[in-house]
Amino acid sequence: MSTQRQFAARVAMIGGGQLARMTQQAAVDLDVQLIVLAGADTEPAVLAGAPYILGAHTDLDAIIKAADAAGGRGAQAGRASRNRSAPAAPGAVAPAGIVTFDHELVPPALLAELEARGYQLRPGRAALAVAQDKLLARRLLSERSYPVPAFTPLTSATDVVAFGRQHGWPVVVKARSGGYDGRGVIVVEGPDAIPADIEWGSGGQPAWLAEEHIALEAELAVIVARRPSGAAVTYPVVQTTQIKGICNWLVTPPAVSPALSHEAQQLALRLAEDIGAVGILAVEFFVGPGAQLLVNEVALRPHNSGHATIEANVTSQFHQHLRAVLDWPLGSTDLVAPAAAMVNLIAPDAELDVATNLPRALEVADAHVHLYGKAPRPARKIGHVTVLGATSGQALASAQRAADLLLGR
Amino acid sequence: MSTQRQFAARVAMIGGGQLARMTQQAAVDLDVQLIVLAGADTEPAVLAGAPYILGAHTDLDAIIKAADAAGGRGAQAGRASRNRSAPAAPGAVAPAGIVTFDHELVPPALLAELEARGYQLRPGRAALAVAQDKLLARRLLSERSYPVPAFTPLTSATDVVAFGRQHGWPVVVKARSGGYDGRGVIVVEGPDAIPADIEWGSGGQPAWLAEEHIALEAELAVIVARRPSGAAVTYPVVQTTQIKGICNWLVTPPAVSPALSHEAQQLALRLAEDIGAVGILAVEFFVGPGAQLLVNEVALRPHNSGHATIEANVTSQFHQHLRAVLDWPLGSTDLVAPAAAMVNLIAPDAELDVATNLPRALEVADAHVHLYGKAPRPARKIGHVTVLGATSGQALASAQRAADLLLGR
Repeated sequence: MSTQRQFAARVAMIGGGQLARMTQQAAVDLDVQLIVLAGADTEPAVLAGAPYILGAHTDLDAIIKAADAAGGRGAQAGRASRNRSAPAAPGAVAPAGIVTFDHELVPPALLAELEARGYQLRPGRAALAVAQDKLLARRLLSERSYPVPAFTPLTSATDVVAFGRQHGWPVVVKARSGGYDGRGVIVVEGPDAIPADIEWGSGGQPAWLAEEHIALEAELAVIVARRPSGAAVTYPVVQTTQIKGICNWLVTPPAVSPALSHEAQQLALRLAEDIGAVGILAVEFFVGPGAQLLVNEVALRPHNSGHATIEANVTSQFHQHLRAVLDWPLGSTDLVAPAAAMVNLIAPDAELDVATNLPRALEVADAHVHLYGKAPRPARKIGHVTVLGATSGQALASAQRAADLLLGR
Repeated sequence: MSTQRQFAARVAMIGGGQLARMTQQAAVDLDVQLIVLAGADTEPAVLAGAPYILGAHTDLDAIIKAADAAGGRGAQAGRASRNRSAPAAPGAVAPAGIVTFDHELVPPALLAELEARGYQLRPGRAALAVAQDKLLARRLLSERSYPVPAFTPLTSATDVVAFGRQHGWPVVVKARSGGYDGRGVIVVEGPDAIPADIEWGSGGQPAWLAEEHIALEAELAVIVARRPSGAAVTYPVVQTTQIKGICNWLVTPPAVSPALSHEAQQLALRLAEDIGAVGILAVEFFVGPGAQLLVNEVALRPHNSGHATIEANVTSQFHQHLRAVLDWPLGSTDLVAPAAAMVNLIAPDAELDVATNLPRALEVADAHVHLYGKAPRPARKIGHVTVLGATSGQALASAQRAADLLLGR
């Protein structure tokens, strides 16, 4: 009998942020070696002990290094060393590595090149495009009859004015790509309020789009996990609250009808199928006047709206993402408590001493504190707190109290 | 504002086994840097990404290296490098490092030396002695009126015969130290069955003791966490089932009266206080005829009987151990489900391909599989499976099914 060490599987993840950090924690349970491509050795996943390749997500060679380190199951003893590729087992033909993502920032041309070279991108380039390009996403969703806000590509300020006349003000002006946590989104209150410094793009390649402004009754999010073989599961719906475009907290169950929740889940499942998503897909919804459900954003990776799944659901989104990208059976998504709440720890403008505040926050005995190992720059998400409870209100109050203590407010 | 990285705290753990591995996963949540002293870079905690010092737990210099790496909060950017001590912050007087343990094998003389040098052992040497020396533990428990099986130190086979005459056969003969998972325990059926090769010790230092054999109605275990400042919490009681001296599975709630469970919790809490335990204390109990509760073993570290707390309780024993040794507020120990079961993955004698079997086990959609990254040598614990459920029977059946699939049986 062999006593050599081999991992149950290997996966490369492009990006070493908090999503990779929490995926690393899950990878340990499943004996999966997660090799992250990190821009610096102070990134959250590296600090959590994930083996890593240093390099940019825009550098094909660096990505390939990480992907190759995840290739094969490797019969060699030990592990991939922490800052270079794992050697292939001598004589073995290593299968091409599985590559997944902590963000959607890898340029499409690089994704195409990786697929051409036989790497197993999970999700693949075509699915990722939906998260990378908001105009493409809107067009695709609209063509396939998903409910979306009215939208139009923009080529000039004149287009914004025309859209505002047709759909009313304010108009939401969004960067076609690269925006997150409120960046790249401008709510334009009227024709005179259009920022003069927007670069509209050129040559039939608009860089911005306009969307009708929805008077929100609520915002919902649904996490779906899908295997390459097509099997998919959906998580219970969460209700999110954003402030200045950043998700501040979420609760489950949401304060909407079961029918609306079910509709959101069905739309998210159908979307995962339609775009061939693999791994975690997160769909954010607007609930407009009259309980009108509209698809807002789509992400193809573990997502902030799924963080409560670590404690609140049988299978966390991070375990589930690994299971899905490895084409392993998906776990139960059932809630383990009647209700749960998650509050993001968003660093304040003032100086913050996490080490001093953490023990204070832990006075909230039912709070699950997750820190990301990030320096607390203003408005940066440095962690989150989850609490399970009998009601979402009770869970939220407790999570909020712990968050307040940690943030010194 | 500083954007330099520092951890919320640092802790050294002596030993890099599965307990250190799961403590490392918890440490990531709390932004605690866990520096393990590992005998090899293939140990479970090292494979999980814990920074480590290579060395033996019998090597004072190696222990000091790990302890020094945990000293101070360190204002330097980054982390301790993975195989050498973290440098102290320039000019800073680093407080002596906090040292805790994955096992009880550090020789008492070394513990004394570490305390003399000002390292903060948590638990301390005096408390650890209770887990290191079964005769000392029995005497201490007996003197303080804890219910324990009848026992006597042994200096010869004649002592065993005398004890058997007085208390009946079989007699349980136990090594005074070093035994675990059934090793160092011999059930002697009669005066003719005493192994001839036992080395009884000498010079008033008996190496073995005899204990009366208890006709077991059940075995229970209680996890307690205690801070240096004295605050302590107890977990709900679990019922364990051992086969050949190895814990095979456990369930909660146990099939004993609430009064007996309460008594076990109170005894464990009192014991933690009496011996000045810090961190996790695990107390294993026999339930003898007539629901007689007897203290069996005591461990001063996270313990196999606490593994289900990762999913079944608000605060896992691993998070709790870190909170306790850092003198941070303790978390809630409440169960999050009506019942739970944990089954150890004990490697069979036959060859085992974990990578092939894992996806099969994951077909059990509610099973939480934890693999330790250990080569599957026969009778070795290579992981565990936990399932939450409406009843302990249902949870156990599901966990057992997943374990069977993983072990290929």
